[in-house]
Amino acid sequence: MSRCLISKAEVQSFVQRCMEAVGTKPHHAQSLAEVLVEGDHRGHYSHGLNRMDMYVKDVQSGICSVVGEPLVEKETVATALVDGQNLLGPVVGNFCMKLALKKAKEAGIGWVVARGSNHYGIAGYYSMQALKENMIGMSFTNTSPLVVPTRGKECTLGTNPISVAAPANNGDSFVLDMATSAVALGKIELHHRRGEEIPIGWGQDSDGKLTPDPSQVLSGGGLVPIGGCEATGGYKGYGLGMMVEVFCGVLAGAEFSNRVRTWKVTDKEANLGQCFVAIDPSAFAPGFTDRMSELLLIQRNLDPAEAGAPVLTAGDPERENIRKCDKLGGIPYHLNVVTHMGL
Amino acid sequence: MSRCLISKAEVQSFVQRCMEAVGTKPHHAQSLAEVLVEGDHRGHYSHGLNRMDMYVKDVQSGICSVVGEPLVEKETVATALVDGQNLLGPVVGNFCMKLALKKAKEAGIGWVVARGSNHYGIAGYYSMQALKENMIGMSFTNTSPLVVPTRGKECTLGTNPISVAAPANNGDSFVLDMATSAVALGKIELHHRRGEEIPIGWGQDSDGKLTPDPSQVLSGGGLVPIGGCEATGGYKGYGLGMMVEVFCGVLAGAEFSNRVRTWKVTDKEANLGQCFVAIDPSAFAPGFTDRMSELLLIQRNLDPAEAGAPVLTAGDPERENIRKCDKLGGIPYHLNVVTHMGL
Repeated sequence: MSRCLISKAEVQSFVQRCMEAVGTKPHHAQSLAEVLVEGDHRGHYSHGLNRMDMYVKDVQSGICSVVGEPLVEKETVATALVDGQNLLGPVVGNFCMKLALKKAKEAGIGWVVARGSNHYGIAGYYSMQALKENMIGMSFTNTSPLVVPTRGKECTLGTNPISVAAPANNGDSFVLDMATSAVALGKIELHHRRGEEIPIGWGQDSDGKLTPDPSQVLSGGGLVPIGGCEATGGYKGYGLGMMVEVFCGVLAGAEFSNRVRTWKVTDKEANLGQCFVAIDPSAFAPGFTDRMSELLLIQRNLDPAEAGAPVLTAGDPERENIRKCDKLGGIPYHLNVVTHMGL
Repeated sequence: MSRCLISKAEVQSFVQRCMEAVGTKPHHAQSLAEVLVEGDHRGHYSHGLNRMDMYVKDVQSGICSVVGEPLVEKETVATALVDGQNLLGPVVGNFCMKLALKKAKEAGIGWVVARGSNHYGIAGYYSMQALKENMIGMSFTNTSPLVVPTRGKECTLGTNPISVAAPANNGDSFVLDMATSAVALGKIELHHRRGEEIPIGWGQDSDGKLTPDPSQVLSGGGLVPIGGCEATGGYKGYGLGMMVEVFCGVLAGAEFSNRVRTWKVTDKEANLGQCFVAIDPSAFAPGFTDRMSELLLIQRNLDPAEAGAPVLTAGDPERENIRKCDKLGGIPYHLNVVTHMGL
């Protein structure tokens, strides 16, 4: 048996206990656990329990702080600059998103930027907090350099994700949560472990050539921006990765581009830049959620090019995964993840 | 001779006179002319003089209005909903961007959404207005359906561009201005006219299959979102196109998705939705333009994968085109464009 089913509550409690054991404050440990559980529940296993040891080590080594709370450094009625105080990413993220929502209630929009943050899990966790308030939410973060700019051969940008969540009627929603690289690093690693080739357009070798060989990507090469090579529009994905860097590291005065520490090398504080936005649709035209529902329905009702592969909207695959978990009564994990974490 | 050189001033004056001849108010005609000249000057000929007849016809037929000015329908200190009054896109765009900049000066950010608008030319024209104020600018518009959602075979989304401009030191800047389709329709048309194949990932046929044949794309097929097919991440480009629709048609209460009128069919008012944003970096960490300059420099200084193909940043190709025009002393046009327009 290579799979085992664990309840959300058990994963939550396990992560909390692990984080508390290394000195994390209980409510900070709870915040981190919630993001990781949500990652797994939505089917993004690369951003869930699987990553817990990274957070444990960061706290244990002291490279990530457990002291204090995030601080507002500067603010207007609609904006804020937050000092994340080198606390766990989800602690900073929750603080900023709450502030963005509060500002959006007053001013129609809240645009909050954080410096001194750490890995915050799935970007969608923060944007989706806006849905409960019937607002649009957005979240962006820079990350360690893994992506090579178009025409280059060196990684200078992170996978810099973009997440946008917008509420529709009856609990339905649009939830975009995407890296600005063609794929996440985890997908390359998975093909590598399986000895499988990767599609052309996912990664390149150390000479800057697209390659089907995942080992070339992992040793001296890098991820390719969305769009692939220059001819197929990869410069657009590169531009979007840069946009995220403008909103995050540059606006926040945090690390940015190739100054962010190397992936999995914790030789210095991460000092990530992150950006959180809330927009109140009631400040614009009435009937927002009706139109959102129709926008989603138009796409979902399309005749698919291949029978059995229905046209989806952003967030649908995750919704399906959540339904699957809830039917099973827990989250199905590969046994080696559970064993590795000692759960 | 197939090329001729025309000064910016001459193109500006010609477009103004044409628009005024069909009843456009002088200052509205001037606004449109400025956007078209800027499109050509930046090398985006598909959004310049080449498109003038479309605007002339829209005004001549009365499907686009020349009466009144855009109106603020609803506002907060940081947001506004504007009724574009079915005026020319650049008239609405300039009104909204000016308002967004004013709000950003007061509140750190201005987020302005317009309904009742028309084609507004290059998206970058509006985002770049923020550069003069040392602010970040953004602009988004929905457009007639030309793009097929991943797994579908019918066009339900426009090329829905995203533009983000951010100031660096000494007049340098980052100017992203991109359709959320892999390429613009104009590029497919160009290959078709030349009898050339298109790269796989640009367009698909009426069965939803990627095709190298531009005629298949133009007759019943459609453009593919950035990222190409599902395996190479096309669902991300599709998600970004939807995001633009959320900010534009849905937030504004304008037409959206496949309800926007068919491209080049002017059977009803366009009622496009558009979104304009200004962000004041001084509301965040000090030293924004220094960091922007460094971000740009890091990429530009990279060792290129191929000698002679330097790593660029968004806006660099346009800057080069402007330099070329200014050296020539005008904008080089293909003679058939000039003849067709009667300049």
